[in-house]
Amino acid sequence: VTTPPPEIHPAWLPPQVFRHIGSRRCLVHGAGTLVETVFEEVAAACADHGGSAWRGRSPARQPPADLVFALREADRPGCARLRHEPAPAALSTADGAGAGAVEDESFTVSRDGAVTTVLAEHPAGLLHGLFHVVRLGESAFAGAWPATRQRPAAGRRMLDHWDNVAVDPVMGQVERGYAGGSLFWRDGAARDLGRVRAYARLLAACGVNAMTVNNVNVHRTEAHLLTDRLDEVAAIAAVLRRYGIRLHLSVSFAAPVTLGGLATADPADPRVRAWWAATTARVYQTIPDFGGYVVKADSEGQPGPFGYGRSHAEGANALAEALEHHGGVVHWRAFVYNHRQDWRDRSTDRARAAFDHFAPLDGEFRENVILQVKYGPIDFQVREPVSPVIAAMPGTRVAVELQVTQEYTGQQRHLCYLAPLWSEVLQFRPWGPGASTVAEVAAGRRPDPGAGEVAAGAGPVGGGGLVGVSNAGDDPYWTGHPLAQANLYAFGRLAWAPELTPGSVLDEWIGLTFDRPPGGVPARLRDTLHAMMDGSWRTYERYTAPLGVGFMVRPGHHYGPDVDGYEYTPWGTYHFADRDGVGVDRTSATGTGFTAQYPPPWCEVYEALDRCPDELLLFFHHVGYGHTLGNGSTVIQHIYDTHFAGVEEVVRMRGLWAGVADLVEPRLHARVGERLDEQVRGAGEWRDQINAYFHRKSGVPDARGRRIF
Amino acid sequence: VTTPPPEIHPAWLPPQVFRHIGSRRCLVHGAGTLVETVFEEVAAACADHGGSAWRGRSPARQPPADLVFALREADRPGCARLRHEPAPAALSTADGAGAGAVEDESFTVSRDGAVTTVLAEHPAGLLHGLFHVVRLGESAFAGAWPATRQRPAAGRRMLDHWDNVAVDPVMGQVERGYAGGSLFWRDGAARDLGRVRAYARLLAACGVNAMTVNNVNVHRTEAHLLTDRLDEVAAIAAVLRRYGIRLHLSVSFAAPVTLGGLATADPADPRVRAWWAATTARVYQTIPDFGGYVVKADSEGQPGPFGYGRSHAEGANALAEALEHHGGVVHWRAFVYNHRQDWRDRSTDRARAAFDHFAPLDGEFRENVILQVKYGPIDFQVREPVSPVIAAMPGTRVAVELQVTQEYTGQQRHLCYLAPLWSEVLQFRPWGPGASTVAEVAAGRRPDPGAGEVAAGAGPVGGGGLVGVSNAGDDPYWTGHPLAQANLYAFGRLAWAPELTPGSVLDEWIGLTFDRPPGGVPARLRDTLHAMMDGSWRTYERYTAPLGVGFMVRPGHHYGPDVDGYEYTPWGTYHFADRDGVGVDRTSATGTGFTAQYPPPWCEVYEALDRCPDELLLFFHHVGYGHTLGNGSTVIQHIYDTHFAGVEEVVRMRGLWAGVADLVEPRLHARVGERLDEQVRGAGEWRDQINAYFHRKSGVPDARGRRIF
Repeated sequence: VTTPPPEIHPAWLPPQVFRHIGSRRCLVHGAGTLVETVFEEVAAACADHGGSAWRGRSPARQPPADLVFALREADRPGCARLRHEPAPAALSTADGAGAGAVEDESFTVSRDGAVTTVLAEHPAGLLHGLFHVVRLGESAFAGAWPATRQRPAAGRRMLDHWDNVAVDPVMGQVERGYAGGSLFWRDGAARDLGRVRAYARLLAACGVNAMTVNNVNVHRTEAHLLTDRLDEVAAIAAVLRRYGIRLHLSVSFAAPVTLGGLATADPADPRVRAWWAATTARVYQTIPDFGGYVVKADSEGQPGPFGYGRSHAEGANALAEALEHHGGVVHWRAFVYNHRQDWRDRSTDRARAAFDHFAPLDGEFRENVILQVKYGPIDFQVREPVSPVIAAMPGTRVAVELQVTQEYTGQQRHLCYLAPLWSEVLQFRPWGPGASTVAEVAAGRRPDPGAGEVAAGAGPVGGGGLVGVSNAGDDPYWTGHPLAQANLYAFGRLAWAPELTPGSVLDEWIGLTFDRPPGGVPARLRDTLHAMMDGSWRTYERYTAPLGVGFMVRPGHHYGPDVDGYEYTPWGTYHFADRDGVGVDRTSATGTGFTAQYPPPWCEVYEALDRCPDELLLFFHHVGYGHTLGNGSTVIQHIYDTHFAGVEEVVRMRGLWAGVADLVEPRLHARVGERLDEQVRGAGEWRDQINAYFHRKSGVPDARGRRIF
Repeated sequence: VTTPPPEIHPAWLPPQVFRHIGSRRCLVHGAGTLVETVFEEVAAACADHGGSAWRGRSPARQPPADLVFALREADRPGCARLRHEPAPAALSTADGAGAGAVEDESFTVSRDGAVTTVLAEHPAGLLHGLFHVVRLGESAFAGAWPATRQRPAAGRRMLDHWDNVAVDPVMGQVERGYAGGSLFWRDGAARDLGRVRAYARLLAACGVNAMTVNNVNVHRTEAHLLTDRLDEVAAIAAVLRRYGIRLHLSVSFAAPVTLGGLATADPADPRVRAWWAATTARVYQTIPDFGGYVVKADSEGQPGPFGYGRSHAEGANALAEALEHHGGVVHWRAFVYNHRQDWRDRSTDRARAAFDHFAPLDGEFRENVILQVKYGPIDFQVREPVSPVIAAMPGTRVAVELQVTQEYTGQQRHLCYLAPLWSEVLQFRPWGPGASTVAEVAAGRRPDPGAGEVAAGAGPVGGGGLVGVSNAGDDPYWTGHPLAQANLYAFGRLAWAPELTPGSVLDEWIGLTFDRPPGGVPARLRDTLHAMMDGSWRTYERYTAPLGVGFMVRPGHHYGPDVDGYEYTPWGTYHFADRDGVGVDRTSATGTGFTAQYPPPWCEVYEALDRCPDELLLFFHHVGYGHTLGNGSTVIQHIYDTHFAGVEEVVRMRGLWAGVADLVEPRLHARVGERLDEQVRGAGEWRDQINAYFHRKSGVPDARGRRIF
């Protein structure tokens, strides 16, 4: 970056978006930490914009107000504190199975006469209601409309930070981070918390309510957060608490050995269980609203129950047991596969691994275990089918994990608005048309396992919610690429309301981030950002690995193309391109049998070459270069065409941005401009390498005679 | 390594090899540091083995001796000190052009009656004579034989250490080091020097007489060795001096800016020259026998004269001027190429770069500039043609650089005895049959540039000698793989006597290293080591990149195969394999024109497809997979056959080693055994990846029906 760093960018909460509230007479009533937060926000807005704010026990006894935030249960202060004051025993209710947590945060908003009213059962509802009113802007104060109830689809909307406390020699301060250093840690120690507070506020404003602050790969230093460095964690938790965000910790399955000095971490060993119980009790003494543990076990070198001949259910349950009566949960990651595979062995299929490991365990997990499943069967590629694990475990709480940080989607040097990808995943129906969506499974709704139909509302167990790997760091723009803020915002919003369209979420984000009083965002800027961002994921897909085959990235850092980079490695990510064709045969008939992990209709759709969607063709089938796609093109010509087109789209994107220089703050404009330059370069590199690779292999010339190297 | 570390291994100087000397009556006479060293060595041997050692001014006045080391010029002490005492003014003579330095170290050895006598003009000759007698063993004391004169072919026989003082975050303590940490530096500071002394002794025993102690990539910490950390360097120099080894420093061309605080490092700027003069003078005040500078300029990101619009002659001469009257030299590396090349551009050829940069500058370098040229035009590959630069610069002192550390030849996990490769290079005749060899050019002999014939003896300028990049570190076996010690030994021996055959050098090394009194090395062990090592370079070639095409290694660390790893990168190292064929067209007729950089006959031999040696075919030509080689096989079948054969040879090697477990110290045997296991695994990986890659591309089945994945 050659432009001078700006002050910390306000992201989607620039001061002016509070002017609609801050110019009114505002009443806040109720008690509890989050009600205090709502009042502070409202009072600060009024101080900035000329309005007035006051507290009151009951709306009836107050002077006339334009905007009222009221806790229905304010007369019962014990209840108002339910989730937000140190009252561990009560917390367990909110964390049990079912939809309880969702109701906790719900609110109604209405406008009657000249008064806009936000009502909630619990303080968290008021907090989310506040930011709802911020999003409504001036329209919150126009006309009259009936009460609408807002409630989050998923009770848990968690951001995972893959942040290291001590800088890792290979992965740095933030593993897969592309936005500077960690917001929480620097060079082995906790950072000043001022910025954490601003971060928590941004997250609350888009709907996030849970967070891990350390990497799922738990290294030596980070392990101690659980025990002797708990005070540092508690200080962060105190800041998050004021914005309704509960803190979770990533822990090592080997902690009883590495921290506890025991000879084993065998989950069946009573001493091990006692250690987890005692350690967890100490955590709750220090952090009464602690959320729970996140565990990456038996995965990419992390220790796990396999080391003791135990199943992952036994492993997860041992930790869950320790958390249960404190109201905590275990997020247990399903990302378990053999990363020492032999590339010569075509019968082993990494895509099968999570299902093979976990589906047989369905029903064996305790209620406070959440199985955290990556959205696709491989690893956050730009295009994957939805993981079959999501449909395979009706007796298990399932959380769906998305990657907000752009490890495989341009590393925040490329503009790639990910909400369309996530929306496709969340709206996917694993049991076919009419049945539940992935979002509904994550919220706890799924088909009756007996009847194969949808049971609306609570299923046999609750939902696990949505988890995103954060893209934020100490970069002045939070996310490196300023426009990547939209991904962080969209994650929170889709977790709360997955039915929102990606375009409408983007529109919200533009409206807040680029707000310019008095009229809001200039139409030309709004249109330009939509034109750049709405289709940017598809554009990224066009110029990178084709037709769902994935993983043609440089090994290690995963930036830029290397078609064969993982082809002869132990990582299980292959494309099998030869002079005749390309793709992975995952059919049941002739391939690895992965398709059989899906329920109908998808097992049949993916199995059949003529029914498999084009964009997933090479994920499921090995085909000749001359194979004709559903879109009428051959595979090889499709590769050429999409790669030329993708780069042209990026060039167009850069031109569009140049055209709004007059409407955007100069430093932000320059930062985005630099990234677009790199994206043009990088996309050209992808185009040329992919096209050259397949041209050299296939020998088929481009039908349009364009230059291939 | 799973076996416990042994004590420091004595390498080729185990105590017992001194028993032949140590059991005799030995007279040492003469004065000077190195005569003291000879006497210490002889006295220690006699203390161990029951002989006696004494000093004397003249042999005539002494009691009868079995072994005499005598300085002919001992009566002229001033002369005896010429190169070995702090006498800066005198040093310049030895460092000037011509063969002076060679004579300095020569000696005669003879046996008359019952007395073996080593005579030398200068103390260094006695030191080398001592180790000559050690090598002779008991035969030094049998029969009678006339005086033979031994003199080194090249005056300068230098080892370069790519050691960092501060651990580099990417390259570690030793760049391209595979033998533990640095012998000189640890975590930013100089180490205890006890081991440096042992190292210097080993090097003197094989003929090395010059050394750099820091990486040619001069990072920030290392730059200060030249100025404020000179005391640490001087302490090392004092240890090396006692074994006849002069210390050189790698320096940064930008030092006048980074260390001197000047605004420029422009070699034409008088202030820059003054800075170099003053800095160099301070170095000589501290280290009177300092050897000089080694410079990697305008190469892979290092600063250089191009940054100031100056030629490399101007750059080198500025430093040479500062060194000249102190008797120092500049080793200026010819490894200059564009490492930001566009892989799409097939007209740019990295192989051409050194010639294109330096040949036009011939005659412009000062006499104390030595152009240090890698043996091949690319970068230490297992097979390259000899660099055309070596024949292109009759008016320049040329040193040939070899890589003892096995960056591209198995990283001391694979057994690869490199002397056969070096011997081929050194015996190569750039001007064809009858003309000088590369070894002769390095020694200062080359054809009369006018007549195109060989001018024996001193040419228009002196020779630059031989330089090796060391493979030694603080590993207990010095070199990681215990048998890689043979490479270090062979480097020194071939630098002294390039006419030695690789087999005879290996035999010497075996005889010393595995000596077992009283009878020496058991014949079965000697035969086994020859069977394992004589052909190990060819074996390594067989299972790695085929037919001279090179560089199919994993990017970055360069270990193991990745056929396309560098294919689409800016590094200029390509193979251009497609479905029809493979190889780089470097002909003048249709390719990059690299062949024209060679004098006849090689320009014609390499240009002609039917004359080009098989083993370099793909370095010079792009051919179809069906092309028939000189050996009668097709290219594709040759690839399959050699890769299967190479692995079989490694398996055989491992079996041979298992068969001598009874004859080798157990820990050493285990260490070598572990490395052979890894070599078997690694060779299999090479075989399978290379064969799979070319099978997928070519579609040609193996004629012998073996399994290709």
